Amino acid sequence: MTSNTVDQKILETVSKLSNPESYKLVCHKHMMGEPLPSNKKLKRIINLVREILFPGYFGTTTLKTSITPHYMGVYVDELLEMLTGEILAGLCFECTDESELRIEKHKNPAQEKAVAFIEFLPEIRRRLVADVEATFLNDPAAKNFGEVIFSYPGIRAITNYRIAHKLLELDVPLIPRFITEMAHSETGIDIHPRAQIGESFTIDHGTGVVIGSTCIIGDNVKIYQGVTLGAKSFPLDDDGNPIKGIPRHPILENNVVIYAGATILGRVTIGENSVIGGNVWVTSDLPANSRVVQKRPRDIPFMDGAGI
Amino acid sequence: MTSNTVDQKILETVSKLSNPESYKLVCHKHMMGEPLPSNKKLKRIINLVREILFPGYFGTTTLKTSITPHYMGVYVDELLEMLTGEILAGLCFECTDESELRIEKHKNPAQEKAVAFIEFLPEIRRRLVADVEATFLNDPAAKNFGEVIFSYPGIRAITNYRIAHKLLELDVPLIPRFITEMAHSETGIDIHPRAQIGESFTIDHGTGVVIGSTCIIGDNVKIYQGVTLGAKSFPLDDDGNPIKGIPRHPILENNVVIYAGATILGRVTIGENSVIGGNVWVTSDLPANSRVVQKRPRDIPFMDGAGI
Amino acid sequence: MTSNTVDQKILETVSKLSNPESYKLVCHKHMMGEPLPSNKKLKRIINLVREILFPGYFGTTTLKTSITPHYMGVYVDELLEMLTGEILAGLCFECTDESELRIEKHKNPAQEKAVAFIEFLPEIRRRLVADVEATFLNDPAAKNFGEVIFSYPGIRAITNYRIAHKLLELDVPLIPRFITEMAHSETGIDIHPRAQIGESFTIDHGTGVVIGSTCIIGDNVKIYQGVTLGAKSFPLDDDGNPIKGIPRHPILENNVVIYAGATILGRVTIGENSVIGGNVWVTSDLPANSRVVQKRPRDIPFMDGAGI
Amino acid sequence: MTSNTVDQKILETVSKLSNPESYKLVCHKHMMGEPLPSNKKLKRIINLVREILFPGYFGTTTLKTSITPHYMGVYVDELLEMLTGEILAGLCFECTDESELRIEKHKNPAQEKAVAFIEFLPEIRRRLVADVEATFLNDPAAKNFGEVIFSYPGIRAITNYRIAHKLLELDVPLIPRFITEMAHSETGIDIHPRAQIGESFTIDHGTGVVIGSTCIIGDNVKIYQGVTLGAKSFPLDDDGNPIKGIPRHPILENNVVIYAGATILGRVTIGENSVIGGNVWVTSDLPANSRVVQKRPRDIPFMDGAGI
Amino acid sequence: MTSNTVDQKILETVSKLSNPESYKLVCHKHMMGEPLPSNKKLKRIINLVREILFPGYFGTTTLKTSITPHYMGVYVDELLEMLTGEILAGLCFECTDESELRIEKHKNPAQEKAVAFIEFLPEIRRRLVADVEATFLNDPAAKNFGEVIFSYPGIRAITNYRIAHKLLELDVPLIPRFITEMAHSETGIDIHPRAQIGESFTIDHGTGVVIGSTCIIGDNVKIYQGVTLGAKSFPLDDDGNPIKGIPRHPILENNVVIYAGATILGRVTIGENSVIGGNVWVTSDLPANSRVVQKRPRDIPFMDGAGI
Amino acid sequence: MTSNTVDQKILETVSKLSNPESYKLVCHKHMMGEPLPSNKKLKRIINLVREILFPGYFGTTTLKTSITPHYMGVYVDELLEMLTGEILAGLCFECTDESELRIEKHKNPAQEKAVAFIEFLPEIRRRLVADVEATFLNDPAAKNFGEVIFSYPGIRAITNYRIAHKLLELDVPLIPRFITEMAHSETGIDIHPRAQIGESFTIDHGTGVVIGSTCIIGDNVKIYQGVTLGAKSFPLDDDGNPIKGIPRHPILENNVVIYAGATILGRVTIGENSVIGGNVWVTSDLPANSRVVQKRPRDIPFMDGAGI
Repeated sequence: MTSNTVDQKILETVSKLSNPESYKLVCHKHMMGEPLPSNKKLKRIINLVREILFPGYFGTTTLKTSITPHYMGVYVDELLEMLTGEILAGLCFECTDESELRIEKHKNPAQEKAVAFIEFLPEIRRRLVADVEATFLNDPAAKNFGEVIFSYPGIRAITNYRIAHKLLELDVPLIPRFITEMAHSETGIDIHPRAQIGESFTIDHGTGVVIGSTCIIGDNVKIYQGVTLGAKSFPLDDDGNPIKGIPRHPILENNVVIYAGATILGRVTIGENSVIGGNVWVTSDLPANSRVVQKRPRDIPFMDGAGI
Repeated sequence: MTSNTVDQKILETVSKLSNPESYKLVCHKHMMGEPLPSNKKLKRIINLVREILFPGYFGTTTLKTSITPHYMGVYVDELLEMLTGEILAGLCFECTDESELRIEKHKNPAQEKAVAFIEFLPEIRRRLVADVEATFLNDPAAKNFGEVIFSYPGIRAITNYRIAHKLLELDVPLIPRFITEMAHSETGIDIHPRAQIGESFTIDHGTGVVIGSTCIIGDNVKIYQGVTLGAKSFPLDDDGNPIKGIPRHPILENNVVIYAGATILGRVTIGENSVIGGNVWVTSDLPANSRVVQKRPRDIPFMDGAGI
Repeated sequence: MTSNTVDQKILETVSKLSNPESYKLVCHKHMMGEPLPSNKKLKRIINLVREILFPGYFGTTTLKTSITPHYMGVYVDELLEMLTGEILAGLCFECTDESELRIEKHKNPAQEKAVAFIEFLPEIRRRLVADVEATFLNDPAAKNFGEVIFSYPGIRAITNYRIAHKLLELDVPLIPRFITEMAHSETGIDIHPRAQIGESFTIDHGTGVVIGSTCIIGDNVKIYQGVTLGAKSFPLDDDGNPIKGIPRHPILENNVVIYAGATILGRVTIGENSVIGGNVWVTSDLPANSRVVQKRPRDIPFMDGAGI
Repeated sequence: MTSNTVDQKILETVSKLSNPESYKLVCHKHMMGEPLPSNKKLKRIINLVREILFPGYFGTTTLKTSITPHYMGVYVDELLEMLTGEILAGLCFECTDESELRIEKHKNPAQEKAVAFIEFLPEIRRRLVADVEATFLNDPAAKNFGEVIFSYPGIRAITNYRIAHKLLELDVPLIPRFITEMAHSETGIDIHPRAQIGESFTIDHGTGVVIGSTCIIGDNVKIYQGVTLGAKSFPLDDDGNPIKGIPRHPILENNVVIYAGATILGRVTIGENSVIGGNVWVTSDLPANSRVVQKRPRDIPFMDGAGI
Repeated sequence: MTSNTVDQKILETVSKLSNPESYKLVCHKHMMGEPLPSNKKLKRIINLVREILFPGYFGTTTLKTSITPHYMGVYVDELLEMLTGEILAGLCFECTDESELRIEKHKNPAQEKAVAFIEFLPEIRRRLVADVEATFLNDPAAKNFGEVIFSYPGIRAITNYRIAHKLLELDVPLIPRFITEMAHSETGIDIHPRAQIGESFTIDHGTGVVIGSTCIIGDNVKIYQGVTLGAKSFPLDDDGNPIKGIPRHPILENNVVIYAGATILGRVTIGENSVIGGNVWVTSDLPANSRVVQKRPRDIPFMDGAGI
Repeated sequence: MTSNTVDQKILETVSKLSNPESYKLVCHKHMMGEPLPSNKKLKRIINLVREILFPGYFGTTTLKTSITPHYMGVYVDELLEMLTGEILAGLCFECTDESELRIEKHKNPAQEKAVAFIEFLPEIRRRLVADVEATFLNDPAAKNFGEVIFSYPGIRAITNYRIAHKLLELDVPLIPRFITEMAHSETGIDIHPRAQIGESFTIDHGTGVVIGSTCIIGDNVKIYQGVTLGAKSFPLDDDGNPIKGIPRHPILENNVVIYAGATILGRVTIGENSVIGGNVWVTSDLPANSRVVQKRPRDIPFMDGAGI
C-alpha cells in the first residue's frame, strides 16, 4: 500500500468516526475543569479506608500506640479530600444542568456526603470485624485473622460493598457501582451496592457470586462461589423499558448457607437456618430449616477415550 | 548454611536450568530487534479504541464539537502505529522462516492489516452502540447509558471480543487471543475471538461465561454469569492430537435467553426465542420457543448445626 | 456545613477510629524495620520464576545459546534475594516472639528455604512442561505451545500453584496463599497451595474453579471452568472452632474429566477414568469408569416476552 | 535506646514542630480543593509547548502533513486545560482574599490569560526560529538545526524564558519564575522572566549565566557561560527593605558579544557591537564598538610540586 | 558481521570485564541483604524534611490547625524509618568488618543517630527561617517568602547543607555528601557538608558556588553565583597522599558580601563587613571593612566582525 | 470570554501553528517506525555501562565472585541491544535518504558500531580507574574510592565523556552529544565529545567547566570549576557560515593545573607543569612550568551599608 493510500484511508475513517451522528448515544459531554470519576483515585480511596479499618495491614502504620492516632488523622484528612472529589465527579456525571455553575453547586453537597461517610467509618469497622470473625470460623483452612484480612477475596468484596452501600445510602451516584465493580474485577464477586446485607456475612472463594440490587440478606449467612441471587423476568413499562426499583431478588433469612453454584431467582424467601446444596435452581420460597439438594445424577454408558 | 554452600547449590541449579534439553519445549526464540507481543501496548491499544468509539468516557476528550475531530485524528494515528507494531509481533511470533529478513517481510502486511482494522472501526462502533442499548434495556438496575459504558463488565468483554474477532478475520495471529484473555482476566468472561456473535448481545454480570471458538450466536441474545457454550468430546487424529477446526460448539438462534450457570455442550442448536433456566445441562438440540429448567431439587432431612 | 463543623466531626471520628478497642482484632503489629509481605515483590518473584522456567517468553532473554546461562544466573541470583526477603516477611508475620531479635532469628531459615526452593526449580519446570503438553493436547483451539504458555489462564494458575505448593512444603507461612490468591484474582481459578496435584494437569477456561486444601488429584486429570472440589460440613471443636487439618475434600484418581460447573463435595473418591458431566452435584464416591450427568431438564410452558 | 525513649523523644519533637509560632513565617495556607503549582504539570506544559513549536522533535508527531494539524489541535487543547489550571494555582497562591469563593473568582481570568498566551504561540515560534538560526551560525561545532534544537541548553533556557516572559506580561504570578527556575536547574542558565531580550539571541554552553530582572538586551547578542548581568547595590526604603522595581541591571545594545565569566553590574549600557573579554568586571558604561579584556596576568615564581 | 562473530566478540569482552584484576579498585562488595544508599530514598527524606520545616509548600498538608500535628507525627515517623535505613546503609558502606553480623551491629547506632537528627529539626527550622528572611531582604526581585521558599535554588542548597551538616556532626558517613551533591546537581551550588556556616546566610542565583570543607562563615554573609571558597595547594604525606583535615579554606567574618565569580583560596580571613567585587582572585587576608575590585580592564583595538 | 470566543481563538491559533511555512526550519520528519533518540534509553545505557565498569556501585550485583560474570554477560547483552537501537536512531536522524529502506540500510552498521564500542569497554574501565585514582589523590576531602565513584560529579562527567568520545570515534552521529549533554545537565560540566583527553584527569567540583571540541589535554591534568577551554573568534566561509573543524581550542600539556574560573581561549598551548590561577584570561601560549595569577585587585573606599 502506498503511503498516500494509507493516509487517504485513515483520513476517511477519521472523518466517519468524527460524525456526531455515529456517537451521539455513546459519548459523554463533560465541562472543562470538571472531574471525571477516576479509577486510580477510587483505588487510593479504597486503600485508605482499608488502612484506616485494619491498621497495620495495608499501609505504613507500624502501630506504635503513640503514633497510630496521627496516622488515623492523616489518612482521614486525605480521604476527605479525595472522596469529596470523586463524589463531586459522580454528581456532575449525572447532572443535566448545562450552566457553567454546575460544578459549584455540587461542591458543598459533595463535601457533606464525604463527611457523613467518614462519620460512619467506625460502624463499618465494627461490621467488618464481625465479617472477618465469621469468615475465620467458617473456614478450617484459615490459620489466623491476618491471613483472612490480607488475602481472602470474600473480605475484599464485602469491604468494597459496605463502603459502596453507605455511599449509595448518601445518594452518591455512579461511584458506588464503580467501587463494587472494582471488587468484581479483582475477585469475581459481584455485589450490587443497593443490596442489604446483615452482620457476620461470609463468602468463601467467591468467584462467580452475584447478589442483585434488591436482595435482603440476614445475619450469619454463608455463601460459596458461583451462587447467584438474581432476578427472573421483570415487568416492562409502556415504552418497553424495564420498570426500575421493583423488588425482584431473593430474601435470605438468618443463618442460611448456600453451596457452590446454586441459582436462586426472583423475590423468593429462603427461611432461616436453611441449607441449599450446590448447583440447584430455586425459584420459589423455602420454609425455615429447609435442606434441599439437586436430584441425583444419572449414569450413562462408559465409552473409553470419549468425553461425554 | 555457609555462604559457600549456598553459592554451590545455586550454581548447580543454574547449570541444570541452563541445559537446553530441559527447556526445549517451552522456550521461545525470537530474533534480536524483533518485537514480542506486549501486554502494556495491547492495553493502550484497547484504551485507544475505547476512547475512539465512546468519546468522552475514557480519554481526555472534552467533546467540544470543534476539537473532537482532532482527537479522532490523533488517536487513530497513534493506533495505526501501535497496532502495526503488535500485529508485526504476532506475525513474527508464528513465523518459521529463520532468515534475518523475516521482520522485513512482515512489515507491509502488518500495516495493511492495521489499516483494514481501522477502516472497520465505524462498523464496530455501530455494533457496540446496539450492544449498549440492549444491555441497558435488559437491566432494570442500569440508570443510564453512561453507567453501562463505564462500568459494565459485559460491555468490556464484548468490546474486546469485537476488536479481536475483526483482527482474527484479518488473519492476525496470537494478538486476538491476547485481547480476549485481557478481558477474561478483568471480567471473568471468556469469549473465543473466533466465535460469531450477532447484534444487540447482552452478557449480565458475566463471571464464568465461556463462549467457544465455533459458537454461532444470533441477534438479541442474552446470557447470564456462569453460562458455558462449550464442546463435548472431540475427535483425535491418527497421532492422538485433537483435530482442529471442526464445529463443536452450540448455535444460539435469535432472542435466546440463558440463565446463570447453564452448560450447553456440543454442536447443538437452541431454537429462537428459547429460554433456558439456570444450572441446566444441555447436550442436545432444542426447538424454537423452548423453555426448560432444572428438575426440582429434593429435600433432605434437616440436622441442626451441620452443613450438608 | 461550616469549616469548623467539618473539622469537629472529622476529629471526633479520628478519635473513635484511634480507640484500640475498636481495632484490636483486626490490626497487625509489626516491628520497625521488619518487612511486610509485598504484593509488588511477589509479582516480580513470579515473573522471575516464569522467565526462568519458560525462557524467551516473559523476560528479555533472546535465547542466544551463549548468553542464556548468564540470564539464568542473574535471574536466580535476584530470585534468591527477593524470595529470601518475602519468606522472612512471612516468618515474621506469624511469629509471636516479641523480642527485638525476631528478625534475626528468622534470617537463616529464610535463606535456607529460598535455596531449597531454587534447587527444586528444575523439577517444577519438568512438571510444567507436562502440564503445557497436556493442555495443548486437550484443546483443539490451541495452535501451538507458545499460545498456551503466553495466554492460557490454566497454565498461569497451575504455575503459581506449583510454586506455592513447594513453598508450603518448606513450611513457609502466608506467602504460598498470597501466590495462589494472585492467580485467583487474575484467572478466577482458586487452588489451595496445600492440595496435591499429579502430572499433566489441565484446567480449561477455568473461571470459578475451586480446589480445596486436602484434595488429592491424580495424573492426566482435566477439569473445566466452574468446577468445585470442596468440603461439606466440618466438625467443630469444643470451643465451636472448626477443627483444622482433617481430610475433607475429594480425591480424583488418574484420567478423570470433570465438565463445567460440577460440584463435588466432601472426602469422596472419583475412580479413575471417570467422566462427570457439567452442573452435577456429587457428594458420594464414584467407582472407576463412572460416567454421570445431570437429570434431564423439564420443559415449562412458554410465555412470550417473559423470562422464567 | 529503649523503644519507649525513642517514642518519647519523637513525640516531644513532633510537639515542638507543631507549634505554629515556629513555622508561622514559612508556611503556606491553601484552601481545600485549591490547586498548588505543580512541577510535574509545568514540565508537561513546557513539553507540550516545545512539541507545538518544534514539531517532530519531542512528541509523537510523525509529521505527515495530513495529520499534523490534528496533533496541533490536540496539543493546544491539552495546553489550554493544563495552563489554565497552573495559572489558577498561581493566582490563588498570591491571593489574600480568605473567602471560600477565591477559587471561583480567579477561574475566568485564568482561562483568559491561558487563551491569550496560546494566541501568542505563533510569535514565540517565530522568535525561537531566529534564536535557533543564530545559535547554529555562532557555533562551528553544531552540525545541523536538529542537534541545536534537541540538545543545546541555551535553546532550552531561551525557550523557557520566552514562555515565562509572555506569562509575566499577562500578569501571571509565581508560574513564570517556576518555569525559568526549571531551566536554571537543568541548564545552569538563570534568566529572570522580566528581562527584555531581543531577537536572534545566543547563549553558548551557558552554565552560570545570570540575566537580572531589569536587563534590556538588543538583537544579535551572544553571551557565553558564566556571564553575569547583575545588580550592584540597591537602595533600601525606610524600613530597610529593598525598593522593588528600580532599573538596576545592564543594557546590552545590538550585536554585543560577552565572553565567559565576565561580570557586568548595575544600570550600565554596553554600546552596540562591543566585545567584552572573559572574566572582566565592568561597572560602568562602555561606548559602541568597545573591545575590552582583562589586564594581563602576572607571573609568579614556579615551585615544583606545589599548587599556587 | 555474522551472528557468530558478534557472539564471540561479546563473550570475549564479557570475559575480560569479568576479570577481577580489572575492577578490584573500583568495585564495591556489599553483603546480601545489606542496604546500599538509595538516591530515591534520600530524595524522599529531603522532601519529608522540607515538608516538616515549611508546612504547606511541598506536601499535601492543607494546614488546618487541627490536622497539622497529625501530619507532623506521620512525616516524622516516616522520616525516622527511612533515615535509619539510609544511615545504616552509610555505616555498612564504610564498615570493614567482614562478619555476617555487621548489619546487626550498626542497627542501634543508626537509629540513635536518626533520633538525634530528628530532635535537632526544630533548630534547623529556626535557622532556615532566618536564611529565608535574609534571602528575601537581599533580593529586590523577590515578591514574598513563598516565592523564595518554593523556587530559590539558594534556599534549596542551604536546606540540604543544614541537613547534611547535622548528619555529619552525628558521624554519619557518606550520606551527608550524597545530600549536598543532590543539591549541587539541582542548583549548581556545591557546599561541603563539613563547612561551618552562620545565621542568615544568602546565596543569590548560586550556579558555580563552591564552599570547601574547612570554610568558616559568619552571620549575615551574602555570596553570589560563581564564588569559590577553595583551597590552594595542600601538603602531602610521606606516601604522596594529601594530608586530610588540615584547615585550608577561607574564613568569612560577619556581614561579608562577595560578588559573582570571585575566587578566594586558602586559609585566609576576610574581615567583617568586607565587600569583594566580582571575578577577583584573593589568596591573602583582608582586614575588616575591605572593599576590593578587579583592576580595570584594558581596551584593545576594535576589528569589525571579529571576536577577540 | 464566552465559550464560543475561546473556541474560535483556539482554532485560529491551531490553524496558524499548522502552517508548514511557520515551522519548516524547526521540524523533524522521521519515518513511521523509525526510532527517535530516547533520553530514557540513553540514561539506561549510561547506567548499564557504569554498572559494568564499577561493579557493585550502581546496580544489583552483590559481587559474589561466582555470579559476577553472569551479571557482566546480562548487562553486556542488554547494552548491545539498547545501544544498537540508539545508534540506529542517530544514523536515521542524520540520514537524507528518503526511501523507505533507510532504516534497513543502517541496521548492520548500527550493530557493528555497538559491538566495537563494547569491545572497547575494558579499555574505558582502565582509563576511568586512573581517573578515579587521580581524583582521590587530588582531593584531601575524599575519604575513599567509593565516595569518589558514587558521588563526585567530575567522575560522572568524565565517564560520560569517555563513552561519548569512543562513540564519536566510531562515527555515531548525535548520540555522543546527547550523552555529554546529559552529564552537563547533571553536573554543569560541558565536555565536547570530540575533545582529546589524556590519562588521570581530574575535574574538581566542576560546575561551569567547558572543554571545547578541538581541545587536546595531556596526562595528569587537573582543572577546577568554572574553567573555560574555549575558542576566540572563528573564520567564516564565503556564505558567512562558520568554517567547521578548524583547531580553535587550547592544548594543555601534561601535569597542568588550572584554578577556578580561568578562561583560556584559542589554539594556545599551556606548557607542561604550568599552574594557572583562578579568574585569569589567557589568550596566548604559556611555556612549560609557567605560574600565572590575576593582577592584584584594587581597593576602593568603603561605604557603610552599600554594596559596590
